[in-house]
Amino acid sequence: MDSIVELIEHKRDGQAHSAEEIERLVRSYVDGDMPDYQMAAWLMAAFLRGLDADETVWLTKAMAESGDMVDLSPVPGIKVDKHSTGGVGDKTTLVVAPLVASCGAHIAKMSGRGLGHTGGTLDKLESIPGFSVFLPIERFVAQVRDIGIAVVAQSDDIDPADKKMYALRDVTGTVPSVPLIVSSIISKKIAGGADAILLDVKVGSGAFMKTDDEARVLAAELTRVGQALGRKVVCVLSDMDQPLGHAVGNALEVCEAIRTLKGEGPEDLTQLAVALGAKLLVLGGLVSSEDAGARMLRESIETGKALHTFKRWVAAQGGDPAVADDTSLLPLGNVATVVTAEKSGYIQGFDTEGVGRAAMLLGAGREKADDTVDPGAGLVLSVKTGDRVAAGDPIATLYASCEERFEAAASRLGASVHVGDTRPARAPLFREV
Amino acid sequence: MDSIVELIEHKRDGQAHSAEEIERLVRSYVDGDMPDYQMAAWLMAAFLRGLDADETVWLTKAMAESGDMVDLSPVPGIKVDKHSTGGVGDKTTLVVAPLVASCGAHIAKMSGRGLGHTGGTLDKLESIPGFSVFLPIERFVAQVRDIGIAVVAQSDDIDPADKKMYALRDVTGTVPSVPLIVSSIISKKIAGGADAILLDVKVGSGAFMKTDDEARVLAAELTRVGQALGRKVVCVLSDMDQPLGHAVGNALEVCEAIRTLKGEGPEDLTQLAVALGAKLLVLGGLVSSEDAGARMLRESIETGKALHTFKRWVAAQGGDPAVADDTSLLPLGNVATVVTAEKSGYIQGFDTEGVGRAAMLLGAGREKADDTVDPGAGLVLSVKTGDRVAAGDPIATLYASCEERFEAAASRLGASVHVGDTRPARAPLFREV
Repeated sequence: MDSIVELIEHKRDGQAHSAEEIERLVRSYVDGDMPDYQMAAWLMAAFLRGLDADETVWLTKAMAESGDMVDLSPVPGIKVDKHSTGGVGDKTTLVVAPLVASCGAHIAKMSGRGLGHTGGTLDKLESIPGFSVFLPIERFVAQVRDIGIAVVAQSDDIDPADKKMYALRDVTGTVPSVPLIVSSIISKKIAGGADAILLDVKVGSGAFMKTDDEARVLAAELTRVGQALGRKVVCVLSDMDQPLGHAVGNALEVCEAIRTLKGEGPEDLTQLAVALGAKLLVLGGLVSSEDAGARMLRESIETGKALHTFKRWVAAQGGDPAVADDTSLLPLGNVATVVTAEKSGYIQGFDTEGVGRAAMLLGAGREKADDTVDPGAGLVLSVKTGDRVAAGDPIATLYASCEERFEAAASRLGASVHVGDTRPARAPLFREV
Repeated sequence: MDSIVELIEHKRDGQAHSAEEIERLVRSYVDGDMPDYQMAAWLMAAFLRGLDADETVWLTKAMAESGDMVDLSPVPGIKVDKHSTGGVGDKTTLVVAPLVASCGAHIAKMSGRGLGHTGGTLDKLESIPGFSVFLPIERFVAQVRDIGIAVVAQSDDIDPADKKMYALRDVTGTVPSVPLIVSSIISKKIAGGADAILLDVKVGSGAFMKTDDEARVLAAELTRVGQALGRKVVCVLSDMDQPLGHAVGNALEVCEAIRTLKGEGPEDLTQLAVALGAKLLVLGGLVSSEDAGARMLRESIETGKALHTFKRWVAAQGGDPAVADDTSLLPLGNVATVVTAEKSGYIQGFDTEGVGRAAMLLGAGREKADDTVDPGAGLVLSVKTGDRVAAGDPIATLYASCEERFEAAASRLGASVHVGDTRPARAPLFREV
């Protein structure tokens, strides 16, 4: 049997691993027999030499099986999950999850925290007073069965290989590798127990994938690997060349999600939530077509069923459901300031990552994994791509706990909004399905 | 200033580092600010993407300057050093160092221990009763000045970057990379303070470089980098398709080296020692031609000057100089056995690495860096390539501390000696200079 060093050498020399070798690497790493420095060397070799189609499936499977696997069989029907590759202002889960649950779907989701310029669903939910993202696994399953929705932090016992490998990739320059991204995402979904998975791959200046081509490759691999491991998978490419909606920041995004569940949200967010929700209803076997799904979802918004499910969900996880009727119960920065346009013209577009970084400078995000976030910090854009502004018009309102945060954030935001003379073409929200 | 992760990403993406970046990587690693896993990722990226000519020089310089630098200025004249890339039965330093010192050269050498199938000069010297390879730096310099020769273990304060990086490369599959090998070898030589360096690059089945082409690339880079850093460098390629001399094992090799200093050694070892010694005398400015050097060296052997210098050297480092007159004072395995030829024919050649592994199985080498070696273990070959043997003729005598070691070692040795019907062409000892 080859030693761990020999396995690293094989990958270094461009050889393919067997399923047994991949399992051994993952197991040795999780058990602590393979130290971080050996995994770091293997990850860099895998990054540069690649993993073939089989290796990626085997790696995903080995990671999924590296810890506990959630058993959702007590929940009737097809259990669905939804995952976004991360963007700026992406509060879609907060809208789409209660929306589809209100129509009878069962959505069981383990989520992550924000890092760098992207926000995380857990941070957003925790800005609701009392909301807990830590549920014992039995309560998680029972809540999915009874309310149709639960969103929790991934426990340390689920996919420990991914937890350890992701943390290592983050500090060794081995994040942007398609097979490593695919195995990280899909292994968590497999371990999470869902039958069907909807993946929202974000593309553009605020996403990890900057171009359609990159995103298309990732989407194809996510679909292939998920299907190879027996899951129904649908992948969409959606626009992240500007922030989704207007709000960027935890409580601010919850507020915007609540407005959207009431039918008063921004057009792009509403459109994306209904489109993704319709796909989830089809995946969950609840409707036979996306059109029928979209009609059901719009009706749920109009009748208040969606908001009602949101309240039940929040209450079930310890949060105060009254926030749904009175968003002033959500935390908001003590101080605010308005950033204005320096010249007149049309909004050409955004450096969306820059907008996310500005929110981070206000306190809404983390630079490092152990930073704390300020739930009330963030910004609300007054403009979207294609809007006309005059010099001096507001382009965003910034919120923070103290005024010292404004200077750097305002400067970063100002540099991230591009104003020009001609009206730009509007990019479609969906790039591809 | 780029973060360490960004520097790893640059190398991963095939970008060249600046001198400042390379210095920062080395300094951060030695200071402990850059953890092993980040250096492991960088090493694998450097292995696969390569380092260009400038980067290799900068890396070598940064490593050499990572700790103390030996100041040999108290020693008059040109200080020379000799380094072998490692082989089986390579006891050349034990012969050539006292030989050139007896002719007026000043040889200051920091050496290493054996690992895997190759032996190390320190282990060989330590098989001499009392010999110490640990000298304070002032004594090292004084001994070079007074006796013309000192060979010691590299202190932890000299080139700590290499010590740490080499240990990490050994367990992360990043050893066989020309720029990393070159920086490791030359940085130690630069920090060791010598003005002129003779490098003996071994080629063949017992060497790290298996082919002439590989060895030629390594030799050219060693020369280029050493010269770029202001040293005189001469590189030779010598044969390691069979063990050098007959003895493989620590005390056994010391014994053979002593015989060679008396003019009674094997032909190949004598020839190599005189040839390398002549080059060292030219490098040291003591003779104007290699022919003159070779004559001086042969005379030193004949008159006993060489052996006398060996004795002074051994005594200066605490060893018993009487071993030079009575080699039975050296340790030797309690038990011995003879391996015989299974069929008649000519010795076609050796799996030289296999011979080294057989010696290791007898106790003469280490598998891991913290294994201890048995100074009396090893083997003495009765045959060289081209010799004629009859079935049942001895091909080697094995020595060990107990008979249990013989079975695996004899089997490994037997498989490493190739007997065939035709007389093979004799390979030249020197492949290239």
